[in-house]
Amino acid sequence: MEMVRFLQDQPLFGGVGDAAMQAIMRLMRPQEFAAGDVIVHEGEDGDSLFVICSGTVEVLKACPTAADPLGKRIAVLDVGDVFGEMELIDMQRRSARIRALQPVRVLALSNGGLFQIYESDLPTFTIIVMNLARELSRRLRCIDELAVRSPSVAAPATAD
Amino acid sequence: MEMVRFLQDQPLFGGVGDAAMQAIMRLMRPQEFAAGDVIVHEGEDGDSLFVICSGTVEVLKACPTAADPLGKRIAVLDVGDVFGEMELIDMQRRSARIRALQPVRVLALSNGGLFQIYESDLPTFTIIVMNLARELSRRLRCIDELAVRSPSVAAPATAD
Repeated sequence: MEMVRFLQDQPLFGGVGDAAMQAIMRLMRPQEFAAGDVIVHEGEDGDSLFVICSGTVEVLKACPTAADPLGKRIAVLDVGDVFGEMELIDMQRRSARIRALQPVRVLALSNGGLFQIYESDLPTFTIIVMNLARELSRRLRCIDELAVRSPSVAAPATAD
Repeated sequence: MEMVRFLQDQPLFGGVGDAAMQAIMRLMRPQEFAAGDVIVHEGEDGDSLFVICSGTVEVLKACPTAADPLGKRIAVLDVGDVFGEMELIDMQRRSARIRALQPVRVLALSNGGLFQIYESDLPTFTIIVMNLARELSRRLRCIDELAVRSPSVAAPATAD
């Protein structure tokens, strides 16, 4: 029940009931990575989202001027944060590389798992998609705020 | 039927069936604005999203260094584009000002209207939220690409 509570406390699963959360946990695959491991490669097809259970990761984007050949660090993600979800939503390729900064444990939910939730429990699936949309909206607001202060970035803040 | 087809062709309503689209249209309120009218004010509580049926609008964000006292233009939106949806998703205040560049006709869907869809037709509501999430994800990818090329912006591309 401890892991159920942990997941319900995260933005992705806020509002999901106990029984539904237990069913979802059975669809999630635990994975472990060592510090320095690349968990997600930019440009790959993505078929899972990941919830961080312990450790931190960095988000790197390919950039010719970055000191690190793997890319420019654009964010650090911590316990409870999610990555890999954009590719499940928009069916595009991985938008960034994810590298473990410490030993990291995650729970992975595949596209197939998400589809099982859609088929078996539409209200819960809807809650999860709304939570994902809320997180994306929150991130857009943050980056729009940064972009409007930067003379070199014209942000497509809303649909173009 | 012409307006039903028009709406089904837009990203927000892609995948919505004919009968559901007709039901949603009955919940939408047509509104008209003259060139120069401010349709949405930054910082206000937002209770509607808007689909542009004709005309174009600009998205302005408050910025002390902008030449226009209403803010810095960060995007121009055209027929079929949606604005005002972020506030329905994340319950925050309006993130930007929207001003008509030409005479503009929109269809407004209120929070209450969206809730009616949720209550009466969950599968259609879920399609709409997925479409919204997909659009937000697409915009995040665009702005992340811009931000990684700008030395002055560190983009919180994924959850922080």
